[in-house]
Amino acid sequence: MSEMTYQSSEADEMYDLIKRLFPICRSITGDGVRETLRIIQEVIPLDIHEVPTGTKVFDWEVPKEWNIKDAYILDEEGNKIVDFKENNLHVVGYSVPVNRHMTLSELQNHLYSLKDQPDAIPYVTSYYKERWGFCLTHRQREQLKEGMYHVVIDSEIKEGSLTYGEILIPGETSKEIFLSTYVCHPSMANNELSGPVVTTYLVKWILGAPRKYSYRIVFIPETIGSITYLSRNIDEMKRNIIAGFNISCVGDDRAYSFLPSRYGNTLADKVAMNVLSHRHPDFVRYTYLQRGGDERQYCSPGVDLPVASIMRTKYGEYPEYHTSLDNLDLVTKDGLYGSLELLRECITVLEANEVYQVTCLGEPQLGKYGLYPTLSTKESGKQVRDMMNLIAYADGTNDLIDISNIIGVPVLSLLPIVKRLLDCGLLETKK
Amino acid sequence: MSEMTYQSSEADEMYDLIKRLFPICRSITGDGVRETLRIIQEVIPLDIHEVPTGTKVFDWEVPKEWNIKDAYILDEEGNKIVDFKENNLHVVGYSVPVNRHMTLSELQNHLYSLKDQPDAIPYVTSYYKERWGFCLTHRQREQLKEGMYHVVIDSEIKEGSLTYGEILIPGETSKEIFLSTYVCHPSMANNELSGPVVTTYLVKWILGAPRKYSYRIVFIPETIGSITYLSRNIDEMKRNIIAGFNISCVGDDRAYSFLPSRYGNTLADKVAMNVLSHRHPDFVRYTYLQRGGDERQYCSPGVDLPVASIMRTKYGEYPEYHTSLDNLDLVTKDGLYGSLELLRECITVLEANEVYQVTCLGEPQLGKYGLYPTLSTKESGKQVRDMMNLIAYADGTNDLIDISNIIGVPVLSLLPIVKRLLDCGLLETKK
Amino acid sequence: MSEMTYQSSEADEMYDLIKRLFPICRSITGDGVRETLRIIQEVIPLDIHEVPTGTKVFDWEVPKEWNIKDAYILDEEGNKIVDFKENNLHVVGYSVPVNRHMTLSELQNHLYSLKDQPDAIPYVTSYYKERWGFCLTHRQREQLKEGMYHVVIDSEIKEGSLTYGEILIPGETSKEIFLSTYVCHPSMANNELSGPVVTTYLVKWILGAPRKYSYRIVFIPETIGSITYLSRNIDEMKRNIIAGFNISCVGDDRAYSFLPSRYGNTLADKVAMNVLSHRHPDFVRYTYLQRGGDERQYCSPGVDLPVASIMRTKYGEYPEYHTSLDNLDLVTKDGLYGSLELLRECITVLEANEVYQVTCLGEPQLGKYGLYPTLSTKESGKQVRDMMNLIAYADGTNDLIDISNIIGVPVLSLLPIVKRLLDCGLLETKK
Repeated sequence: MSEMTYQSSEADEMYDLIKRLFPICRSITGDGVRETLRIIQEVIPLDIHEVPTGTKVFDWEVPKEWNIKDAYILDEEGNKIVDFKENNLHVVGYSVPVNRHMTLSELQNHLYSLKDQPDAIPYVTSYYKERWGFCLTHRQREQLKEGMYHVVIDSEIKEGSLTYGEILIPGETSKEIFLSTYVCHPSMANNELSGPVVTTYLVKWILGAPRKYSYRIVFIPETIGSITYLSRNIDEMKRNIIAGFNISCVGDDRAYSFLPSRYGNTLADKVAMNVLSHRHPDFVRYTYLQRGGDERQYCSPGVDLPVASIMRTKYGEYPEYHTSLDNLDLVTKDGLYGSLELLRECITVLEANEVYQVTCLGEPQLGKYGLYPTLSTKESGKQVRDMMNLIAYADGTNDLIDISNIIGVPVLSLLPIVKRLLDCGLLETKK
Repeated sequence: MSEMTYQSSEADEMYDLIKRLFPICRSITGDGVRETLRIIQEVIPLDIHEVPTGTKVFDWEVPKEWNIKDAYILDEEGNKIVDFKENNLHVVGYSVPVNRHMTLSELQNHLYSLKDQPDAIPYVTSYYKERWGFCLTHRQREQLKEGMYHVVIDSEIKEGSLTYGEILIPGETSKEIFLSTYVCHPSMANNELSGPVVTTYLVKWILGAPRKYSYRIVFIPETIGSITYLSRNIDEMKRNIIAGFNISCVGDDRAYSFLPSRYGNTLADKVAMNVLSHRHPDFVRYTYLQRGGDERQYCSPGVDLPVASIMRTKYGEYPEYHTSLDNLDLVTKDGLYGSLELLRECITVLEANEVYQVTCLGEPQLGKYGLYPTLSTKESGKQVRDMMNLIAYADGTNDLIDISNIIGVPVLSLLPIVKRLLDCGLLETKK
Repeated sequence: MSEMTYQSSEADEMYDLIKRLFPICRSITGDGVRETLRIIQEVIPLDIHEVPTGTKVFDWEVPKEWNIKDAYILDEEGNKIVDFKENNLHVVGYSVPVNRHMTLSELQNHLYSLKDQPDAIPYVTSYYKERWGFCLTHRQREQLKEGMYHVVIDSEIKEGSLTYGEILIPGETSKEIFLSTYVCHPSMANNELSGPVVTTYLVKWILGAPRKYSYRIVFIPETIGSITYLSRNIDEMKRNIIAGFNISCVGDDRAYSFLPSRYGNTLADKVAMNVLSHRHPDFVRYTYLQRGGDERQYCSPGVDLPVASIMRTKYGEYPEYHTSLDNLDLVTKDGLYGSLELLRECITVLEANEVYQVTCLGEPQLGKYGLYPTLSTKESGKQVRDMMNLIAYADGTNDLIDISNIIGVPVLSLLPIVKRLLDCGLLETKK
């Protein structure tokens, strides 16, 4: 099977998965999350955890569970002018049940639309205050006539639980690489089905690859999910995690971007910056002040996990963000596949990263080991330049990423050189 | 009383004070200093210290005291062509007494003027070598005719003392904020009556404001005064002073500028840079190599006090500097008031500066405390951004100035947020 | 003898020496090196060391010794079309003996020329694989006719030794300044006869100058020579050497350039950067990635000597490099003399470099010591600026190079000021 076929097959599978997950109405709790995780389980093994409503999690509390069967607005003629079954963004997330007749003027207090994007249905939620509401395009809203409307939201908010998926993949060491992604967004594609879909195929690849590190991967609702997960696992996470990535907005093919940890100085930042600088040198670099995802929890004071975010176009930075325009046209096979490849490279670099030390004083005589051209000409020096540069900085103080940064060569290109030098006994891992 | 009225009243009072002090002939010793301090005592309490001639002060010695009653040059017709009573800059500071008739050619050796500024009387002194001389405009000098002149300087150089004013304002802690300004310049306005006048009203404000720190403020002659003061107080100053400002050239309204301490790394530098960057981002930034005031003493090796200089247009950098053109037209009410406000903000920031630490893991649920909008929309995130950014960096390693620098919000804008978070128990001061 | 005459005399002598050494056929071993060192001994004392073939030196082994008497190619008519005696670059360095008749086609496998530089004979060597070959201009090569050729190389590769010269000059302290240069290149001028010639006259000057430090200077074959020398002296070198320079390519007059040590943070880097920045602010700054000389050995991991390279136009960066065009036209008297002066300044700065501390608190009263103009005018402040700046940073934490860097004044200009201040007792050396 050629690389190209394989590649294309993975891109196809990811796109198929995103199409299948797209119609499900997810929220921070409820059956939409469960169904999403169940479908992902068809690709990779996942442990499903349920955390009961009311559980104290740091400064928060697990909320009541929300489920919804149907929701619509009928006009005076009985026409279903807004229909949840057509697009689940039509209902404000966590809307309380309602079944009432009201004038347009009353109804307006419960409608949300975007003047600047008149064809987009906005994504609105109200998790922590009881409300109900409908979202619709501004174009439709402007055409609503005076009169009575019948609004129905067949939802339920009740004691239940918050659901998340987790997979722990053991490696040679208990030190962990951590991945986290969201399963709480209704029908939107880049933010957020790209995250769980790319993460699913990343996990599938990790399961099949040799590995030094253990892996902890979570599929969670944003904010309350990461807070819940942290509150149950923080000691182990702080002890074990050496680097992690929050995987979100990885589906379009417009840009690559990077959002660092709180001080931008962790191993996750280091590997991401190194790989992005070599592979996509025009990537967009944000600051932690521009954060907005679960890095807010993972990097919060006292939690202090080494978590950074590699994205395509960042949440909040593209016009379709948090509207019905963030759909299956925005996310592409190339977009998903590029992110998968990039994350794979980051993980490969993390796995390969070691501090090496040259075993002899002075430059080794490469010729002895068959590593050097025997005829010295004006140009021959250049051929072994990368090898000699690697040796020059393999002084027991730099890891491979440092060396890559110093000598300007991608870590992946250094790996075969490292192998040859290890084989010759010219290099050794620093203990 | 409205803010505007108050503001205007302070500006008026400062301008009135500067007008009243302007005609007095000050030098590094003598009755001009005493009269100046006496007038300032009408606004704020000051202890007056007299240090006898000959007192050893570090590498120096308190000089003899100089006083002058009159000085003039008469031409052959008996016309008073140069008159100290018209402008005290006409006499070289510390001129020895003289009463002689001489030719123009002899006289020329004792005349000082500026070719490039033909309408300015230069400011010239000779503290440490006995001389006499007259300063005049170059225009006038060029019109002097051949002939005999009668020169009279009715001055006295004698054993006496060096005079300075001091006020120590106790606070909750013995840690001190230090302010120093000059009272040794004759009739010049920006350099230097702006310094003591702004300092006077700053002291008046400090006396009426709540304060954590103690304050040490001195009104001294430049160089020999600061050396004298240091030599008598250095141990206490090194033990207590956390930050200080040399206040000079704060009266014109052309620019703000900053001159750092020797390495630019003290708390005084930090607060000044922070406040100037937010309030006057186009301020002129000098290096310590461009110093010229008492920071030369306060920041000298072994003294090493955390003293920086906030100025309007810096000494030596404006054409009127050290001439009769540095007068009451150059200094304005706006100039004085802007400096007063800026120094007040620096002191307010110093007083408020603490290292804070958030009390919970993960982001707090702001909604619980009424700190968060309950409806999440596309824009609502921005509203609490400053608060969340403050919390993100309130990790026990940053003081408020650090946080202000990191998140780009003035400390004064952070103070109400800090108060709300302290009230909620979400923040605590790091001991 | 005027400075100018002296200067010109040194430049002349260096140029004479380079002319005398130019025709000798040097290689990494053999009689050419011995003769070169013998001629240098006419100017300065040198200890000659011989290290036997087969001696293990770090990862290497001293190679067999190579000597050559003659070499040529005869065409069918018996014309000597390529003649070693005309230019020793015509023979590939370390060519094994050969005496054969062969067709042009066979011969082509042993010919080296440069298409892009058709009038240059390239410099080619094969130290570690047995070969033979001839180098010639591409223009000549293209004119070779079909037919039989008689090739003769009257060389010898045998057990022998590697030869190098060394001079140890004792100083007041056992701490050493180290200089290293190459004696292994055949008839090329900038790379490399400029190095040994400038080093010879630098040593001559060192021998006649007062000195604090001891000096270790070596005249060695590149790579194998420095490895050999290091392997015999590394402990002493690591214990004693405070700074060193690899002296190569110092003969043309096109540019000055600098190649740092592995991390660019040694005293050698510091002094070179300081002197170059003041004397030749437009110098070319390379990185360690662009290295190519014995800094590769001296700065290798575990060796870690503080060695940097000051050059004129760097090896590999000029078109004549490693060809017959690198000749006595390329190297000039000005080129050699400028390098000598620059290296002398670096050594002078190293010798003079101390950490000083001012002895009084506050600024000293310069007037007391006759160091200050007694009349204070608008401009008089500038005159003592350098002195005051030196005093300001003579705080026991900066050496003279640091102060020079901070205040922007060359160290040589600071030395007379330091002397005056030491004489006054205002400065003392920090122990």
